[in-house]
Amino acid sequence: MNERIYLDWAAATPLLPLAKAAMEPYLTELFGNPSAIHQEGQRARDAVEAARTQVARALQVRPELVTWTSGGTEGNNLAILGVVEAVHAAGRAYTDMAVVTTKIEHPSVGLAMEALAQRGVEVRCVSVGETGKIDLTHLNELLDERVVLMSTAYANSEIGTIEPVHAIRKQLNAAEAKHQTHIYFHLDAAQAPLWLTCQFDSLGADLVTLDATKCCGPKGVGVLVRSRRVELAPTIFGGGQEQGLRPGTENVASIVGAAKAIEWAQADWRERSESVGAVRNTAVTHLLEHIPQAVLNGAPCSSGERLANNINISIPGLDTEYATVVLDTAGFAVSTKSACSGAGGGASTVVQETTGDPARASATLRITLGPDSTPAHIQSLTEVLKKHIEKMEDF
Amino acid sequence: MNERIYLDWAAATPLLPLAKAAMEPYLTELFGNPSAIHQEGQRARDAVEAARTQVARALQVRPELVTWTSGGTEGNNLAILGVVEAVHAAGRAYTDMAVVTTKIEHPSVGLAMEALAQRGVEVRCVSVGETGKIDLTHLNELLDERVVLMSTAYANSEIGTIEPVHAIRKQLNAAEAKHQTHIYFHLDAAQAPLWLTCQFDSLGADLVTLDATKCCGPKGVGVLVRSRRVELAPTIFGGGQEQGLRPGTENVASIVGAAKAIEWAQADWRERSESVGAVRNTAVTHLLEHIPQAVLNGAPCSSGERLANNINISIPGLDTEYATVVLDTAGFAVSTKSACSGAGGGASTVVQETTGDPARASATLRITLGPDSTPAHIQSLTEVLKKHIEKMEDF
Repeated sequence: MNERIYLDWAAATPLLPLAKAAMEPYLTELFGNPSAIHQEGQRARDAVEAARTQVARALQVRPELVTWTSGGTEGNNLAILGVVEAVHAAGRAYTDMAVVTTKIEHPSVGLAMEALAQRGVEVRCVSVGETGKIDLTHLNELLDERVVLMSTAYANSEIGTIEPVHAIRKQLNAAEAKHQTHIYFHLDAAQAPLWLTCQFDSLGADLVTLDATKCCGPKGVGVLVRSRRVELAPTIFGGGQEQGLRPGTENVASIVGAAKAIEWAQADWRERSESVGAVRNTAVTHLLEHIPQAVLNGAPCSSGERLANNINISIPGLDTEYATVVLDTAGFAVSTKSACSGAGGGASTVVQETTGDPARASATLRITLGPDSTPAHIQSLTEVLKKHIEKMEDF
Repeated sequence: MNERIYLDWAAATPLLPLAKAAMEPYLTELFGNPSAIHQEGQRARDAVEAARTQVARALQVRPELVTWTSGGTEGNNLAILGVVEAVHAAGRAYTDMAVVTTKIEHPSVGLAMEALAQRGVEVRCVSVGETGKIDLTHLNELLDERVVLMSTAYANSEIGTIEPVHAIRKQLNAAEAKHQTHIYFHLDAAQAPLWLTCQFDSLGADLVTLDATKCCGPKGVGVLVRSRRVELAPTIFGGGQEQGLRPGTENVASIVGAAKAIEWAQADWRERSESVGAVRNTAVTHLLEHIPQAVLNGAPCSSGERLANNINISIPGLDTEYATVVLDTAGFAVSTKSACSGAGGGASTVVQETTGDPARASATLRITLGPDSTPAHIQSLTEVLKKHIEKMEDF
């Protein structure tokens, strides 16, 4: 895979060498079970807790509010099912509860919601505009005394739209005051750590999901951070690890790597975001100029409402699934939509919901940059893509 | 930690160098998301599927019946909750179902059962004798048309008792024929791969849980193997990974390492079991001879009903929690009971249930050998322990 140009940072990121180095001893001599009382166990325990403190400091939250998970999907499930099950366990019927989300969430949010619906909880979907931004007026209409949870992505994984978290929190606060209730606010922040602040208090959320593999940490590990007022019920059952919220022997090496990656990602998210954002802006201009059929999905680059590394275009009429294969052969790794939506065909739900245009939804290309991406990368990609389009038009 | 003598193989095992080497490329250049269609993604996908085939071959089962999990706890939960939820989804009320287990299971089985009980499923506990072996006569009495699942450890994690899986299967078969029903048989085989065959067909089970960290694989990964007739409902929801049974980006590196470890463990379990069993037998004789207060918990060494590497003794009157700390300081890593039962004090439920003797249950020492353990290790351990006991008696 010489000279590959990897432009699928929303799907997976390379493991930070610093994180890998930190993992090393826990993949060799320090293999103890953190629940064991001997030295081998205690050194593993210390590593897990030091990593928790490290993440807590990076996110400015108390360590005991950080729970290690097996990744973003589990984190989102634990947040969504965990809140509702805890409220249910406290005596409220499922049918007395409603939750609010959007129709453009990652499947791990969307299908957790569907699981709640099957238990009798009412799932309300707030409208999103053409850019994917939550409609605050509609949100306000949906918030009544039955709502216990609002869940959305901090930044959408396909089109990169950054949701107005402070405005949402304000509305939730107002509804809480009005209805004398708690409305927990969950943010799926998997796409955020490299590009946006994840300082917990600054987000106004009650629950925030992170996934290490999206910010240069290892796969199979993430964190769920919660506010003090949140009660959570576990979704799996077993030993008392992670305050009983996530039983099972802790994945020590990966936890250590995840902490390093999250700390590193958050340390200079602003500089990274600015420099990559500049490359992205040049890239989008270039793409749209040379491929006039292309339209940008999501928020304008200049809006401040788009992840710095996200490009998502539609080229109506083009088989973009095939185009990604052609680009792959030419050395470029890009995708059509979220990897978790399945590698197989099918239109983008996100673009369908936001634009209402099936031609756009079935012809998406997602190009997500990394810190080392350059305008030259996109220029050569554009050339290959342009030639491919011309070839297709000749048929 | 020079000259440490690690005797807690039931809690955690060192990562096999072969497994670590296999993981290496997936912790560096091959970081793609297996759901992505580009080369980086496809190489990751190929690795996950090759690992699945490797495990499938080691366990002699079809690859599509192997599901990657985040470890033993999740595997047990997916098996137990997954079977019941699938039967429930097919239209059967929770209150029309019963499940059978024992009172000496790992918390990830015991508490998953408790979760079922809260949903209205009747949980029936079959008696175990003083050695921890399931009482087949009692089992027979418990099996009626309401039973949908029987779950037990293949080998108990504290006292090492190997359950009579074939005799259990026979009884389940008879009950299935009599009541025209399906009774799925789940084995928590976390402790087995190094010491017993895990060939799927030879076990007669419908569901078998393995955990890589118990057989020299990495932490945070395991497999659930199922028979063709099993329908499972997922316990977490998201992307379609693992046939929808376990959504979330696959933990590629750990999966690759787990496959190597399971293959290696199963390749020569018999030779390993024989040689370590011989060391264990010598060790037990030595321990009981030099510490006459000690009694062996579980099945006799000669019975063929005890894991080859398991020693579990009680020294009534001794604070064994403290004794493990003394042994730790002297260089020996041992435990009192299962790590997942919590590092804190408290008697062993397993020994309490099997012996009915609180003095024995509150004074357990679990010593679990590895392939490199020697009689000399146990002789020096015995010396330290003996001196400690004498010192305690002087008070």
